[in-house]
Amino acid sequence: MKLSNKNLSNKDLKRLLLDASVTSIVKEIDHASPERSYLIFNLLPTNKADKVFNLIEPVSQANILKEIDTKKALVILEEMEPDDRARLFEELPEDKSSQLLKRLSAKERRATSLLLQYPAETAGRIMSPFFVSLRANMSVEQALTKVRAEGREAETIYMLPVVDDSYSLQGVVELEELVMATPNQLIENLMHKGAKCFSVNDDQEKVARYIQSTDALAVPIVEEPGRVVGIVTIDDAMDIMEDEETEDMFRAGASGTLGKPYLSVPVFRLLQIRVIWLAFLAIAGTLTVKVLNIFESTLNEVIVLSLFIPLLIGIGGNTGAQSATTIVRALAVEDVRVSDFFVIASREMLVGILLGLTLGTFAYIVVYFAFQQNIVLIVSLSLVAICTLAALTGSLMPILARVLNLDPAVVSAPFVSTIIDATGLLVYFLIAQMILQF
Amino acid sequence: MKLSNKNLSNKDLKRLLLDASVTSIVKEIDHASPERSYLIFNLLPTNKADKVFNLIEPVSQANILKEIDTKKALVILEEMEPDDRARLFEELPEDKSSQLLKRLSAKERRATSLLLQYPAETAGRIMSPFFVSLRANMSVEQALTKVRAEGREAETIYMLPVVDDSYSLQGVVELEELVMATPNQLIENLMHKGAKCFSVNDDQEKVARYIQSTDALAVPIVEEPGRVVGIVTIDDAMDIMEDEETEDMFRAGASGTLGKPYLSVPVFRLLQIRVIWLAFLAIAGTLTVKVLNIFESTLNEVIVLSLFIPLLIGIGGNTGAQSATTIVRALAVEDVRVSDFFVIASREMLVGILLGLTLGTFAYIVVYFAFQQNIVLIVSLSLVAICTLAALTGSLMPILARVLNLDPAVVSAPFVSTIIDATGLLVYFLIAQMILQF
Repeated sequence: MKLSNKNLSNKDLKRLLLDASVTSIVKEIDHASPERSYLIFNLLPTNKADKVFNLIEPVSQANILKEIDTKKALVILEEMEPDDRARLFEELPEDKSSQLLKRLSAKERRATSLLLQYPAETAGRIMSPFFVSLRANMSVEQALTKVRAEGREAETIYMLPVVDDSYSLQGVVELEELVMATPNQLIENLMHKGAKCFSVNDDQEKVARYIQSTDALAVPIVEEPGRVVGIVTIDDAMDIMEDEETEDMFRAGASGTLGKPYLSVPVFRLLQIRVIWLAFLAIAGTLTVKVLNIFESTLNEVIVLSLFIPLLIGIGGNTGAQSATTIVRALAVEDVRVSDFFVIASREMLVGILLGLTLGTFAYIVVYFAFQQNIVLIVSLSLVAICTLAALTGSLMPILARVLNLDPAVVSAPFVSTIIDATGLLVYFLIAQMILQF
Repeated sequence: MKLSNKNLSNKDLKRLLLDASVTSIVKEIDHASPERSYLIFNLLPTNKADKVFNLIEPVSQANILKEIDTKKALVILEEMEPDDRARLFEELPEDKSSQLLKRLSAKERRATSLLLQYPAETAGRIMSPFFVSLRANMSVEQALTKVRAEGREAETIYMLPVVDDSYSLQGVVELEELVMATPNQLIENLMHKGAKCFSVNDDQEKVARYIQSTDALAVPIVEEPGRVVGIVTIDDAMDIMEDEETEDMFRAGASGTLGKPYLSVPVFRLLQIRVIWLAFLAIAGTLTVKVLNIFESTLNEVIVLSLFIPLLIGIGGNTGAQSATTIVRALAVEDVRVSDFFVIASREMLVGILLGLTLGTFAYIVVYFAFQQNIVLIVSLSLVAICTLAALTGSLMPILARVLNLDPAVVSAPFVSTIIDATGLLVYFLIAQMILQF
């Protein structure tokens, strides 16, 4: 008997859930339809239910919360971390979330409202407002006593901001350092002064990337003018990076993200997510029909030219995608800046020319035996021109996006390919006309 | 004066480095040429040099280590965590790394050799062999004393494996729990029994995904039969996820990863990384020339058919890429399994048909006014057929890859597009022949 078997009786399912690991139950709920998610959750032994609820996706949490009675929902919500609760509230219908928010305890309600006042994807929205703060003049022993007294309420005590009377950041201490230090040592001498902090309005990805590159366990988040109001932890950072990268990956695949497990997304929703991208790219693609229309007489005379259309635009699209992917990534991890655009353009153009020369020479030799001399020349020269143009366009488009204050990742491979298709055809036929006329 | 200014005198550079933040120095070194990296590192004040060295990329570490004298190199190496050191050794030339390894202290040499004996990308290769273990019959107070005594040597003390005499795993305790517990409580009653552990031979991505989905701070790594030999921490997990996703992203962009910051990769290396992908895709792309060659006479009669070639194969490629991206992702996060292939195929085929019908209807209306009746019909019908075929192929290819024991991510968008190009053309001309004959 397996948990994933949908024909189990409730009794069998209940027995299975008794022994199943939390991870496997979480996976099963995230896979299941809303109805089945609710069923499984209801059959869980109480000691597992809390743990499972905290680990499933916000969408699954919302599906379950919509079904269970308000009293039970409030018990669960009261136990959640404010940042997880804020994420769950985003998934609930407006009326349901405001109804539940109103009935939370004052402390938890305030914490959640605090986060919800910041826009989505900012540090303020994802931070945890419950942390233990220390003072510079405390001894290690006093600090540990404070941590023990307040630690249960905090999301994490691994990183402890040190603040002054006006709650402005003096430094941070890690729990590890506190444990290893001698009891009478002063926090002042232990703390990292000049520790990096972020503003509530900073982009969540910026905070996550900082945590990743420095291996910090958490970073303090401050409100103007420098008051510490929360912390963002490394596990939050990891989830953010994962989400951002899933998003980029779907963009590279000409599609939006699903937001929930594949099998729980209805076919109609899949259609919805994809048709917008596809329609947009198709409309951009009609440019190729226009270009070919212009050269219809050339095509009519030398029909063999049409044989190479898919190959040439395919290579152009791939070359452009290579450059775009490289530069989008380099911009994201701040390997390059907008001001490097001239270096980038020269490098990519050079790579493009070299790629074109390599493939062009190769094509010249292969096509030489099968086609007329002038066709061979047209195809080879077009390859050089198309590769150069594609590499240049592909590398400059993400930079242009950044200049226009857009996420460079919008310049995804399918987008670049579509743009380059039409340009490539234009180049191909111009070269063809030039060579065939002389 | 800015750190990135390459014309600074050594004196100015040194002064700037005195005030610069560690993060900005790390970024600068990772961007710079090997020579400049070494120069900057050499001018660093001693108190910053260690910190900076530990945060820069393994490639940059290797570049610096190749230049500085062996004595200084050994001081740095001795201070590094064994897993970071193993990663650095991978970047050094064989003779250099074995020469340095031999001169490390016995303890550090053993730790590094232990990791290096496991294949790259396994849990054993990336784990930290220095951790503090507890016993079930210890009191919290005894445990804290042991942590304080041994903690300096460990990579982290945030997660403490509890082991028995034969070093086999009994459970784990988090430092947070230890700090919050009463001093006379027994570890036995505090520890999480049945805590998940991984084998040294497990894929590093599997371990990282587990850490991410459970928010664990670290997981124990065991050697057969169950002996704990190391731990993998959340910050390692974050780096692994980042690396794996960068790799997938570059694949989606028809390219291999650079492995180091963009501006430090020579143009020739960029060419090398890309030309293989491009040549492979170009060779696969010649299939389209063959298909068109077969239908040359049809093309010759109805030249207008050629106008829609780029548009149709573009849409086919994008539809296929959408399905492939979705399924590759769903397989990676285990939202779907190979056994779901029938459900996946039916869902994707349905989405493909609906996408085709939507775009086909749209095309019918738009093209109606510009072209002959039968051309309109051919283009619209082809759209339906191509979208269906593309969605089906795109979704089944990643599953096939998994069955063949390959990483589904090899089925990247450009690969799918290239396969679908030729098939799409075949379908288009078969439909054209059918309709034009009647």
